[in-house]
Amino acid sequence: MVIRPEPLTRRAFQPYGEVIELEGQHAELINDGNTEKFADLAKLVVADGGRIALHVFRSQALEPPIAIKSMERHPLGSQAFIPLHNRPFPIVVAAPGPVPGVQDIRAFLSNGRQGINLRAGCWHHYQLSLGQSSDYLVFDRAGDGANFEEIELAEPLTVQI
Amino acid sequence: MVIRPEPLTRRAFQPYGEVIELEGQHAELINDGNTEKFADLAKLVVADGGRIALHVFRSQALEPPIAIKSMERHPLGSQAFIPLHNRPFPIVVAAPGPVPGVQDIRAFLSNGRQGINLRAGCWHHYQLSLGQSSDYLVFDRAGDGANFEEIELAEPLTVQI
Repeated sequence: MVIRPEPLTRRAFQPYGEVIELEGQHAELINDGNTEKFADLAKLVVADGGRIALHVFRSQALEPPIAIKSMERHPLGSQAFIPLHNRPFPIVVAAPGPVPGVQDIRAFLSNGRQGINLRAGCWHHYQLSLGQSSDYLVFDRAGDGANFEEIELAEPLTVQI
Repeated sequence: MVIRPEPLTRRAFQPYGEVIELEGQHAELINDGNTEKFADLAKLVVADGGRIALHVFRSQALEPPIAIKSMERHPLGSQAFIPLHNRPFPIVVAAPGPVPGVQDIRAFLSNGRQGINLRAGCWHHYQLSLGQSSDYLVFDRAGDGANFEEIELAEPLTVQI
């Protein structure tokens, strides 16, 4: 099966998590009017006594079409990816719930300024990048507990950009 | 009194918090070798039942010399600033403790790729930018409780770049 990424919008991405972007957001003025504050752009969630950890992921670019062979999820916390580059990148997800089949998987294309925050338990492929090696800020849960599951897809899936 | 920013290094900044940077950090390979993970780049701390909130601050550029008239601090949580631009910017701080005088204040200059995470209670001036309006990702504590104090400096202080 072949899928093509849809544009990333807050509405379309709602089953999977949040889009982190400034477009359409209200800012308040702080610091004597020097600073616009776009507040509370994502709900960072950690369950079972974990803490929020901050990482940078540097991912190698892949040449489309991209073969999707496995999906993973983190049941105990959200996971946010915020691009430190400015290039479009694909996001491959399936809603939280039972093990997904290829028909449950959707792909989105960030415009390069949009980040995402995956809900706890949202199935996703690991971060994919296009064009050149790309850095992302990542916020997820650190701590004890089983916070990683990975499954192999029963059928092959290809993302064509 | 006039001060000039020092280069921002992890050692020099240690009394105030952490420098968030990739230089000198070890990465582990994850995602089938596709991704370098620079793990746990800052200790995000929230006390008294707060949560970590994610904002973007868009700050107007100022023309040096910059007059420093007040300092603030957040006793109940760390506050991280990660530049989404790539331009040097100044950081004005005084160590956690009693109300600082101008002689207690130091200024650092980020190279534009370095972010900072201020310790809970570290005195600081609000985020300053040079050249043009600049965006920062900000992580701090949200929740009830007195997490903001501001003081006026008894003497004028000027930061010259």
